[in-house]
Amino acid sequence: MINPYNDAFFMKKALREAEAAYEKGEIPIGAVIVINNQIIARAHNLTETLNDVTAHAEMQAITAAANYLGGKYLIDCTLYVTIEPCQMCAGALFWSQISKVVYGARDEHRGCINLNTKLHPKTELMGGIMAEEASQLLKRFFIEKRNLN
Amino acid sequence: MINPYNDAFFMKKALREAEAAYEKGEIPIGAVIVINNQIIARAHNLTETLNDVTAHAEMQAITAAANYLGGKYLIDCTLYVTIEPCQMCAGALFWSQISKVVYGARDEHRGCINLNTKLHPKTELMGGIMAEEASQLLKRFFIEKRNLN
Repeated sequence: MINPYNDAFFMKKALREAEAAYEKGEIPIGAVIVINNQIIARAHNLTETLNDVTAHAEMQAITAAANYLGGKYLIDCTLYVTIEPCQMCAGALFWSQISKVVYGARDEHRGCINLNTKLHPKTELMGGIMAEEASQLLKRFFIEKRNLN
Repeated sequence: MINPYNDAFFMKKALREAEAAYEKGEIPIGAVIVINNQIIARAHNLTETLNDVTAHAEMQAITAAANYLGGKYLIDCTLYVTIEPCQMCAGALFWSQISKVVYGARDEHRGCINLNTKLHPKTELMGGIMAEEASQLLKRFFIEKRNLN
């Protein structure tokens, strides 16, 4: 039997969150956090709506997952996020001791990889899952925004 | 006439926040954000109380200051924080485009300087204001915690 709960399955859920952000005029990035194949947090970027630079999808997902678990460490959890986390989000993931981070598309300029943000030694980082979809959505957002201005 | 609103004045306010954290059993770090000599945000570490690794003093101060200003960028603002910001907080400060960050004591292991977290080019970073007081409070916290276990 095919296991439906693979990385693409959960990244699609994160992409749905990114689309929800897009529809609100927010930079379209979405995230979910999963434990034992169960989604315990869903979030999307809300920096404009909340007037708050800290309201990235990952930050909200970390807070929501910890709230669900009743503890601040996200051991055995996996974060799926459509775009590679920034320094702030990678720094938060460091503190959370999350087991795995799966991102969609790379962010060469603002992403944690090129900026050398330190992840926790217990955290595995993996990328490239549905990268094209994540990247296209982001490009579409910025092209439309440019055309409106 | 002596101007009472110098860096030590505002760092003392941040230290009071750190003491409030200490009294709650939280790692004692405090922060205030100032614009035109007016404090617009006060916060202290609440990671234990809120069960949330993102609840550092700086993060909460950034959110509160943006809320006060009605905009997410902290132009012309100064953050005073008792201990050098970590990667997460420095990453958030990057996005906020804050004008100045003043910390008390260095954090050699987890601080943004040795971990090379990128601050915004518009942000000036300055340290060493009441470093001894900030550092002593933190040391006292960890010694007492060790003795309790």
